[in-house]
Amino acid sequence: MNVPAEETFLYIVEMIGAVAAAISGIRLAALKRFDWFGAYIVGLVTALGGGTLRDMMLGNPVFWVSSMKMFLSYFIGTALSMAIVIVFSAALVRREKALLVFDAIGLAMFTVIGIEKATVDGRPMGIAIAMGLVTGAFGGVLRDILINEEPLIFRKDIYAMASLLGGVAYWGVGVMGWGPELSALACMLTCIGIRMLALKYGWHLPILRPVDNNK
Amino acid sequence: MNVPAEETFLYIVEMIGAVAAAISGIRLAALKRFDWFGAYIVGLVTALGGGTLRDMMLGNPVFWVSSMKMFLSYFIGTALSMAIVIVFSAALVRREKALLVFDAIGLAMFTVIGIEKATVDGRPMGIAIAMGLVTGAFGGVLRDILINEEPLIFRKDIYAMASLLGGVAYWGVGVMGWGPELSALACMLTCIGIRMLALKYGWHLPILRPVDNNK
Amino acid sequence: MNVPAEETFLYIVEMIGAVAAAISGIRLAALKRFDWFGAYIVGLVTALGGGTLRDMMLGNPVFWVSSMKMFLSYFIGTALSMAIVIVFSAALVRREKALLVFDAIGLAMFTVIGIEKATVDGRPMGIAIAMGLVTGAFGGVLRDILINEEPLIFRKDIYAMASLLGGVAYWGVGVMGWGPELSALACMLTCIGIRMLALKYGWHLPILRPVDNNK
Repeated sequence: MNVPAEETFLYIVEMIGAVAAAISGIRLAALKRFDWFGAYIVGLVTALGGGTLRDMMLGNPVFWVSSMKMFLSYFIGTALSMAIVIVFSAALVRREKALLVFDAIGLAMFTVIGIEKATVDGRPMGIAIAMGLVTGAFGGVLRDILINEEPLIFRKDIYAMASLLGGVAYWGVGVMGWGPELSALACMLTCIGIRMLALKYGWHLPILRPVDNNK
Repeated sequence: MNVPAEETFLYIVEMIGAVAAAISGIRLAALKRFDWFGAYIVGLVTALGGGTLRDMMLGNPVFWVSSMKMFLSYFIGTALSMAIVIVFSAALVRREKALLVFDAIGLAMFTVIGIEKATVDGRPMGIAIAMGLVTGAFGGVLRDILINEEPLIFRKDIYAMASLLGGVAYWGVGVMGWGPELSALACMLTCIGIRMLALKYGWHLPILRPVDNNK
Repeated sequence: MNVPAEETFLYIVEMIGAVAAAISGIRLAALKRFDWFGAYIVGLVTALGGGTLRDMMLGNPVFWVSSMKMFLSYFIGTALSMAIVIVFSAALVRREKALLVFDAIGLAMFTVIGIEKATVDGRPMGIAIAMGLVTGAFGGVLRDILINEEPLIFRKDIYAMASLLGGVAYWGVGVMGWGPELSALACMLTCIGIRMLALKYGWHLPILRPVDNNK
């Protein structure tokens, strides 16, 4: 379906997202004083955890367990992320905004990949959007479980919601009959746009009011 | 095997359990000051997490990923649970006991569903009872992992034990040769009965005595 | 491939590892004041969690869900571990070193099993080593998630690293063409040796320096 140049482009975008995700995991692990090995695993799980969970729920072969190319891409990508964190730690703090942009690109790309893995399987659109959300946002949830924190995406910022609205955009463009390429583009632009606007203007979802109970 | 009226009845019982589970997740997430989206996801995972884990361990298609009816039932059921928590939060505190009854019904129904999914697959009874326990109790375990608490069912009340003893009742009645309908009924009554008695009389399992060690 | 006596020997080694793993889970659960049932589940998950995750990622039937022998072995092995912890709790503290030796044997055996399950499936060696690591080390990660602690193996001692280097030894001997039995032996000796030396001399991996950020 894709011409080779397009495939290469999409692969590069995926790797940018994977490295941004791994860097977020490695930095949070460093704050928790994990050792190098632990930080590497947390980075790896952040990058490939969402897709792994998606593949297990779809009953598909797990992408990095069944493809040596994906295995090497993610394991080497995480090693590269380690090197970036170690060598450029001070610079990263000054480049916080660039990191967040790369992270948003990753969220958007992972969302599209998740939706397309589900639609290729013939799943209905609602389930595909859920798979996009799992792919995009659950790497970060698994990261926060490993470092023993309440998942950030449930308490802060518009993150998973950007993935979800990107999925809705994918579906909306698909309903128009404009083909999967335009759907994917609309999904990515929506996801990145909402994420960036939410960061710029400090948008938050309302917090659910705590309920008194005696549990 | 089931006549349609029976199927409809069982579906309604399952949904009562799903909503009770989702409400427990949403309320605990609210206590942790999660946002609406986070609370929704925690509620959803509480309701469908046990069955998802069961299906992945049995190598079956995940029930809500392979059935649009189940997908919509659980996603809409969780949305309904959100509405209940938001609109009736004060009333819920006064109706704590009713919630616990619904939750026990859900635990019992999920246990039966888990056992039957495993026996349909031809698994031996011990493994089927384990699958009933996973279906009934592990939604709550995943909920507590997401909100970053030690799993309640391991520290408080007779909860997973009620599911386990319900499974044993299912097996006992099956050995008598009284058929799966009576097995399921015995399982549900045992599970609900033990759970209610444990709540009423404050039954607890003994706590394992901490061991001095230098780890 | 194996003669029966060899199979029996390997089964016994696996069970030693399973009991050592379950004991570690039960003792940590006791420190958290879990009840008996909770401690049993934590012990069970420590013993069979790594293999369960491996089988789900490989798309294989989960070993204890598809084999009554394995189901009974792990469930009874964990019950035995409970009995050991309860009856011999004081003695266990004095035998801390023996426990660590058994645990290292388990880590090594689980690593070999994970690698062989993956190579039997025809996976390339890098992926097989990753599966060995998941089998050997992720039972402990799941244990620490259940008891709501940061995973020990990411912060302390050389543990997962011993599994990884054992996997590399497996691969190195295989490249020499010396057959799977010698590969497995090299893997076990490397894994146990490194783990024991690390404990004896207090080897640690470097901690990743925390990064200042305003997240």
